[in-house]
Amino acid sequence: MQSQKVVEGEYVLLYLDQRRTYLVKVEAGKTLHTHKGFIKLDDLIGKNYGSTVGTSLGVQFTILKPLLRDYIMKSVRRTQIMYPKDIALIVVFSGIGPGSRVVEAGTGTGALTTALAHFVKPNGRVYSYEVRSEFLETAEKNIKRAGLRDFVELKNKDITVSIDEEDVDAVILDMATPWLVVSHAHKALKPCGTFISFSPTIDQTVKTVEELKEHSFVDIETFECLVRGIQTERGKTRPQTLMTAHTGYITFARKALKEP
Amino acid sequence: MQSQKVVEGEYVLLYLDQRRTYLVKVEAGKTLHTHKGFIKLDDLIGKNYGSTVGTSLGVQFTILKPLLRDYIMKSVRRTQIMYPKDIALIVVFSGIGPGSRVVEAGTGTGALTTALAHFVKPNGRVYSYEVRSEFLETAEKNIKRAGLRDFVELKNKDITVSIDEEDVDAVILDMATPWLVVSHAHKALKPCGTFISFSPTIDQTVKTVEELKEHSFVDIETFECLVRGIQTERGKTRPQTLMTAHTGYITFARKALKEP
Amino acid sequence: MQSQKVVEGEYVLLYLDQRRTYLVKVEAGKTLHTHKGFIKLDDLIGKNYGSTVGTSLGVQFTILKPLLRDYIMKSVRRTQIMYPKDIALIVVFSGIGPGSRVVEAGTGTGALTTALAHFVKPNGRVYSYEVRSEFLETAEKNIKRAGLRDFVELKNKDITVSIDEEDVDAVILDMATPWLVVSHAHKALKPCGTFISFSPTIDQTVKTVEELKEHSFVDIETFECLVRGIQTERGKTRPQTLMTAHTGYITFARKALKEP
Amino acid sequence: MQSQKVVEGEYVLLYLDQRRTYLVKVEAGKTLHTHKGFIKLDDLIGKNYGSTVGTSLGVQFTILKPLLRDYIMKSVRRTQIMYPKDIALIVVFSGIGPGSRVVEAGTGTGALTTALAHFVKPNGRVYSYEVRSEFLETAEKNIKRAGLRDFVELKNKDITVSIDEEDVDAVILDMATPWLVVSHAHKALKPCGTFISFSPTIDQTVKTVEELKEHSFVDIETFECLVRGIQTERGKTRPQTLMTAHTGYITFARKALKEP
Repeated sequence: MQSQKVVEGEYVLLYLDQRRTYLVKVEAGKTLHTHKGFIKLDDLIGKNYGSTVGTSLGVQFTILKPLLRDYIMKSVRRTQIMYPKDIALIVVFSGIGPGSRVVEAGTGTGALTTALAHFVKPNGRVYSYEVRSEFLETAEKNIKRAGLRDFVELKNKDITVSIDEEDVDAVILDMATPWLVVSHAHKALKPCGTFISFSPTIDQTVKTVEELKEHSFVDIETFECLVRGIQTERGKTRPQTLMTAHTGYITFARKALKEP
Repeated sequence: MQSQKVVEGEYVLLYLDQRRTYLVKVEAGKTLHTHKGFIKLDDLIGKNYGSTVGTSLGVQFTILKPLLRDYIMKSVRRTQIMYPKDIALIVVFSGIGPGSRVVEAGTGTGALTTALAHFVKPNGRVYSYEVRSEFLETAEKNIKRAGLRDFVELKNKDITVSIDEEDVDAVILDMATPWLVVSHAHKALKPCGTFISFSPTIDQTVKTVEELKEHSFVDIETFECLVRGIQTERGKTRPQTLMTAHTGYITFARKALKEP
Repeated sequence: MQSQKVVEGEYVLLYLDQRRTYLVKVEAGKTLHTHKGFIKLDDLIGKNYGSTVGTSLGVQFTILKPLLRDYIMKSVRRTQIMYPKDIALIVVFSGIGPGSRVVEAGTGTGALTTALAHFVKPNGRVYSYEVRSEFLETAEKNIKRAGLRDFVELKNKDITVSIDEEDVDAVILDMATPWLVVSHAHKALKPCGTFISFSPTIDQTVKTVEELKEHSFVDIETFECLVRGIQTERGKTRPQTLMTAHTGYITFARKALKEP
Repeated sequence: MQSQKVVEGEYVLLYLDQRRTYLVKVEAGKTLHTHKGFIKLDDLIGKNYGSTVGTSLGVQFTILKPLLRDYIMKSVRRTQIMYPKDIALIVVFSGIGPGSRVVEAGTGTGALTTALAHFVKPNGRVYSYEVRSEFLETAEKNIKRAGLRDFVELKNKDITVSIDEEDVDAVILDMATPWLVVSHAHKALKPCGTFISFSPTIDQTVKTVEELKEHSFVDIETFECLVRGIQTERGKTRPQTLMTAHTGYITFARKALKEP
């Protein structure tokens, strides 16, 4: 059974309400400053998960174990991260699961990498390509924090040149020029393996789909996902006022063999 | 490495286009009848995955390995199945992964059960409650077909009476009266464990959220997910004409401890 | 005050429920056949609007005065009609009103023409261009039926060649190649006049916007509109299951003067 | 023909880009201060509409004639205004047009009142109820500014008590308790007249629909409208990042006669 008490060195999520949460490493002697007063991290050690801790101003935060989604949303960022809604569709539509071998590019802040590693562990592996070495450092921190470093191979390489791996289950792309990777993906994938690309613009999407059609991919489809929050309260229930209108288009395809 | 050639007894997905796909078990001597002629299943054995097979009318289907999504969409149905988009959000937002122990109700056709089992294997477990025994039979077939029977415990029990398991990672509900399960879920969950409920009506959602607020759950949020297909073709790109406007609202919460 | 009793020669809307409505001209001696039995139109004459009439099978239909939306939705069709939601946005965003002079193309079935005429009467005018003469006949019938023939000039001309009118308030396009009309529209519009184009594909939209930018239009914006029905019933309230996912993109712009 | 040159006393819209526009009355001797320098309003007088005017910093604004939508969006506000998208659907679905007589409540800032007056002029009339007298003053200013004061009767009365008018074409509500007006609306409407209500919460909507069902209204339907902007630029086309996720639900109904 998982530990139920907070241990030094663990990450915890301190929760006040939907907008005010802190992902923090429990280090003895340190202090967390919040808009509602400070919290001595020593006070957390030995406390039960699910209980509360008070700030210097007497405000109570609930001590939560971080979930995959928390690690994603609280990623240290050098660039835009992928939203959990898109990550969710990509993971489930890709067909990957525990044991899968997945090629990913670009690593970026490692948000999608973290999710992929979470679902392919303990005996699968994520091969993550990134040309910008400064991003790899940040990504590595984020992946480590989520305890998933062992399942990821970070590669400072340009995936538009080639893919080193063979017979992989999926190639998943979140990069500016996914169409340049289609032919490499066809080589790297096992037969029926899945190709998924995430692109903000319709132009990138069209270019990628055209390239897929020319490289014996089948079951090609593109979709977008909108998530809208609902303020649920008897007598006052209504959707939220503002929402994210667009993150990107997701394109899915499966490798077929090139017929002679 | 996975087998690359079709072996007797396996399930394959025969693909013509987005609307015409068949999930079929490869049994020697049998025949599949399609709108485009019949296929002798003997012809499939020994063929490479990703290659094609011709019907009696000369139409070529691609032979694909089924993915999780195919098993879900092709479930033998006795009731409405949950959509992959909702399954995707539930899986990723729940925080579960390989090794997790999950309580689910009701089993229904086993579509969500299949997805949960896929992601908690090899050493996690899904405890799936269903009061209607006739549904359990169908669900068992669907789960078996996806090769996931070993990771699921099917229980012909009423979850509104009680939950047998303790210290589970998540309780996930797709049933008519989820609010009746909230107090049992609080007992069954480990601290910080996640509660997720899927309901078609806003009334069910409001009742459930109110019950969650009374039982020391925190981080309660409700949202809906819309997925829209894009017809991607240079010079003719546009969203699809019709879409699913609503499946259900997803409510998420985490267990906090009851303060003395 | 408008007549409150049904008079021979008028159009009425016979309403059973949301899906079963009939727009019918009250002609003595005629009979309307419905799935719920037939109605003798003689029975309607002299009845009060808002009252009911029974079919031969005893089913009661409510006798309603048709609204603009009914004339639009019940247009005799030779092609796809524009949806009321898009017509609504076009009318209100165009800035037109009673007295406005509007150029429109193509006429199509006359659905948008009908709406424009409805809002510019009694002293405005719609100049509607259509190259396919067979469409003009159908459109004329639809516009006449709504009692708006006097406010429309139907022109069997190709608007991509030129626009005859000058100093018009708005140019509104629903046609395959709107970008070919942009320069003519700039000439025909009064300063600050509005240009609106409706296109199903993103490619048409991009071409049109680029042309607008090159012709001294300002305040250019493109949007899409989604309308979702809600099934409202205490204890069972939820959005409808299916919806129209896409009709077209609306592009709006205003004419500025070309600077010397 | 409308004046093409700016005349003292008129309202103009000074346009820099989508986010920076000013609705200003042209008064001799006055100055408009913008983030891009100031503009002497004297400089506007005699200029052509559609031409530009420079600020003290040399930035050029285009001089536009305000449209209905500009008056709505630039209303002086004491409360939330209704969005043009909702106004558009309400106007077109209500069936009103030049000559219609419409009851409206509450007046609020007069945004919807302005639109209704715009479309019923020159010989129709809007009867607008508002209990809060301080709102009426602001609304009157907004309606006057749009040049529509002659078509509106502002009434400092509580519409939940009664409606003074008879045989009106439409009753249109944007207020906290629309269900309290349903029986009055049934009396005030001509047969087949339309009832429309706009409510932010689902609870208000359900109460109103239930009341409509009990008062011989037919063709009752509820819907919501989402408008999403598209950033249109060759090679970079994509939907906007943020959007309004919810304003309110629109409920539509038509009066039938109460059967004896």
